[in-house]
Amino acid sequence: MQILLTISYDGTNYAGWQRQDNAVAVQEKVEDAIGSIIGRAVSLRAASRTDAGVHALGQRASFFAHDLCVPLNKLPQVLNGRLPGDISVVAAVEVPENFNPQFDAKQKTYIYKIQNSPHPNPLLSRYAAHIPQTLNLSRMQEAAKHFIGVHDFAAFCATGSSAKTTVREIFAIEVKTQEEYGAEIRVSGSGFLYNMVRIIAGTLVYVGLGKISPDDTAQIIASKNRTKAGKTMPPQGLVLVEVMY
Amino acid sequence: MQILLTISYDGTNYAGWQRQDNAVAVQEKVEDAIGSIIGRAVSLRAASRTDAGVHALGQRASFFAHDLCVPLNKLPQVLNGRLPGDISVVAAVEVPENFNPQFDAKQKTYIYKIQNSPHPNPLLSRYAAHIPQTLNLSRMQEAAKHFIGVHDFAAFCATGSSAKTTVREIFAIEVKTQEEYGAEIRVSGSGFLYNMVRIIAGTLVYVGLGKISPDDTAQIIASKNRTKAGKTMPPQGLVLVEVMY
Repeated sequence: MQILLTISYDGTNYAGWQRQDNAVAVQEKVEDAIGSIIGRAVSLRAASRTDAGVHALGQRASFFAHDLCVPLNKLPQVLNGRLPGDISVVAAVEVPENFNPQFDAKQKTYIYKIQNSPHPNPLLSRYAAHIPQTLNLSRMQEAAKHFIGVHDFAAFCATGSSAKTTVREIFAIEVKTQEEYGAEIRVSGSGFLYNMVRIIAGTLVYVGLGKISPDDTAQIIASKNRTKAGKTMPPQGLVLVEVMY
Repeated sequence: MQILLTISYDGTNYAGWQRQDNAVAVQEKVEDAIGSIIGRAVSLRAASRTDAGVHALGQRASFFAHDLCVPLNKLPQVLNGRLPGDISVVAAVEVPENFNPQFDAKQKTYIYKIQNSPHPNPLLSRYAAHIPQTLNLSRMQEAAKHFIGVHDFAAFCATGSSAKTTVREIFAIEVKTQEEYGAEIRVSGSGFLYNMVRIIAGTLVYVGLGKISPDDTAQIIASKNRTKAGKTMPPQGLVLVEVMY
């Protein structure tokens, strides 16, 4: 049987999702916890390879087991007893053998949080980027509309990416006032290029600061040129909220 | 001149507000930052001695200076450049020479946050206690009313406290559903005994779990007996929100 987990984590202390040498990754911690229960090493396939410092509420990852020795509905609790406090398995379900958590994903949703205040609030700095200058959110909302639809997002892809195509579809993007911390960008799409959400956020911040106009966004997309877009925003503001199949 | 600072901090990595040997306290970090600007050691007097792991949005602390070499309105920014990311000075104002930030406080407000979900969300665990069983918030709201007013809160004071009197006034206490994490207890009063808010929270959690009835709260207050009240909730759920003069 194949088991699909929904996993939340605080990415602050991890080198990202993907297991690697010389650094502790979330994948390693979850694989070790599963391995200690079923008595053999397992390999997890994830929906999304989140970067160092990026958080997740609803990451999804699956593994194969024919010897699971705990009832599926107890698995989250048993795994959480073996996981550090900054990683939590919130659900476990059985999926068909041919299910692929990465390629079968139909929609992913991310939130980028921005703390917009003169002085940083330390209770928010772990989970939001800080912009001291006042952002014009209505200009950012106007700019955000240009991202919706099927586009070649080459201008919003970090160099060094090995993606076969840079065409993606964005289903929805919202810029909202968030009472507690300032502003939040919520974006849903078919999939995202390397650093794409953080570069979109950086471009919208440029609009919010008046460095570029809302309509410049359309031209930046059309340029397919990474140097035209805004800077890559820092990882701590990003949360992988949900993956849908 | 006396300068009153408003200070926010994430208490996770500190042994509380008060400077002490063999452990790093928030007071020490802020005093060192001020000292490095004005060129001599200063001593801060705070409104509240928050415990290890307790957070603050609006702690207040004052110091005396006749040689402040930066304009008062620039002081927060200059101090923040010398403070770690988990401490931030959000305001600085001049107060009369005879002002005392502890004794002149008229009202203090704390929030206690509870994450109420079967599995812990790691993005909340730094700033909320986790209760997996479902809490009955309407019972907790009913119980909370008994705390309002002037009472001898001896039953809600940690042993070893040196307070001269255990009589305090609670102006308001609210138990609210909080969409993101579950439940929040907000309490304002003239002042609080050692661990008082965390013991009130623990008693309300007992009510929410059905271990005691809402009306039992009145009898617990009347008993003046610490062993009758609920357990002391962990520090990470507590935030000192505001001190008013």
